[in-house]
Amino acid sequence: MTELVQLVPNNSLLTKTPEEGRQLAVKMARLIIKVTQPDAAIREKMRPTYAEDPAMLIAIGQTIATEFATIAAANNYWK
Amino acid sequence: MTELVQLVPNNSLLTKTPEEGRQLAVKMARLIIKVTQPDAAIREKMRPTYAEDPAMLIAIGQTIATEFATIAAANNYWK
Amino acid sequence: MTELVQLVPNNSLLTKTPEEGRQLAVKMARLIIKVTQPDAAIREKMRPTYAEDPAMLIAIGQTIATEFATIAAANNYWK
Amino acid sequence: MTELVQLVPNNSLLTKTPEEGRQLAVKMARLIIKVTQPDAAIREKMRPTYAEDPAMLIAIGQTIATEFATIAAANNYWK
Amino acid sequence: MTELVQLVPNNSLLTKTPEEGRQLAVKMARLIIKVTQPDAAIREKMRPTYAEDPAMLIAIGQTIATEFATIAAANNYWK
Amino acid sequence: MTELVQLVPNNSLLTKTPEEGRQLAVKMARLIIKVTQPDAAIREKMRPTYAEDPAMLIAIGQTIATEFATIAAANNYWK
Repeated sequence: MTELVQLVPNNSLLTKTPEEGRQLAVKMARLIIKVTQPDAAIREKMRPTYAEDPAMLIAIGQTIATEFATIAAANNYWK
Repeated sequence: MTELVQLVPNNSLLTKTPEEGRQLAVKMARLIIKVTQPDAAIREKMRPTYAEDPAMLIAIGQTIATEFATIAAANNYWK
Repeated sequence: MTELVQLVPNNSLLTKTPEEGRQLAVKMARLIIKVTQPDAAIREKMRPTYAEDPAMLIAIGQTIATEFATIAAANNYWK
Repeated sequence: MTELVQLVPNNSLLTKTPEEGRQLAVKMARLIIKVTQPDAAIREKMRPTYAEDPAMLIAIGQTIATEFATIAAANNYWK
Repeated sequence: MTELVQLVPNNSLLTKTPEEGRQLAVKMARLIIKVTQPDAAIREKMRPTYAEDPAMLIAIGQTIATEFATIAAANNYWK
Repeated sequence: MTELVQLVPNNSLLTKTPEEGRQLAVKMARLIIKVTQPDAAIREKMRPTYAEDPAMLIAIGQTIATEFATIAAANNYWK
């Protein structure tokens, strides 16, 4: 299953800007959801559940913060 | 959807002071909520839920601590 | 709202000792709660809830550990 | 029990690309599940539970983000 | 309240061995609980709750792992 | 209590291989459980609870990922 989904867009952690790095973090987090739940219909059905649940929204924020930490370090913080 | 929200204000992790870095961490965490739940009315309705729930307030603190770790490293801890 | 609360006491992550660094971690974590729930009466009412709930106490510990990691790195671990 | 499962495929954190590093993070996270619950039938039975539960999918994302941080550092971010 | 509890034993993150570093991580995590819930009787009453709840035991493990990461870095991993 | 359990096997974070480092992470996480719940009978009784609960299995994975990050850094990622 893992082989069917591209987990790292462009196969690189390097981005030109922090904004693009942040978008990559969001995408990489979503791709893990996709590889764990490959059925698009089920994923779509879950969207209102997590998007209207503050605890889940906070947890999504925690995950993306962790992904972003790695991407930011990879880019030497775009300094 | 990601493209409609600016995820990193000023497209930079660099701030003049720790205080500004901390404010950036808060903003970046909120922007992830915004990109995941773009409907402002729904977000507003959730506010009392998380703002009066100690477990969620703690989880928000955890997320912001993680965001801040990255921003602090980016700024070499303002040393 | 963020502007009304000082998020980083003394606007610095540098402290003279690990003990002071740990106290700063506790304060910074509490200030995030304060900025998210600015009503002191509501915060006070929540205190017994989290202070008598072991799961929340553990979660507070997790948050402070994350804050402290950043402060300790900022101070080069007081070596 | 630990001895019966290979926890790190190829006994190395080094991969050629970020994509392979991400796949390794997914595998290493799954192998911890396997060593904790060695019964394949029970693991299989749990799959629909977590794959249709957004909170669990988010938590899986958090775990893989943490594993990936280590693998990415090991590979100097494939720079 | 913070001032009444010593949060970092010996006011130092440096230890002679990994074992002592791990014990320090356990103590520092417990001291945060103590500063948040200063009433020893209430803390004692909570013990069976978390010590017989696997989810809480795992969460304690997560917190101590985070504390230990900082202490280990402070000691350059006792290399 | 802490004194009765060896928290870091061999009192060292250094291992010859990533595989051994991963096994050390698993052991160190389990030893924290042991020091918090010293009664072997109670620990044994909890096993089916967490081993058949996907949320707890994921949380175990998160804890071990955090422990492993420290061990991997201590070993300079076995490069």
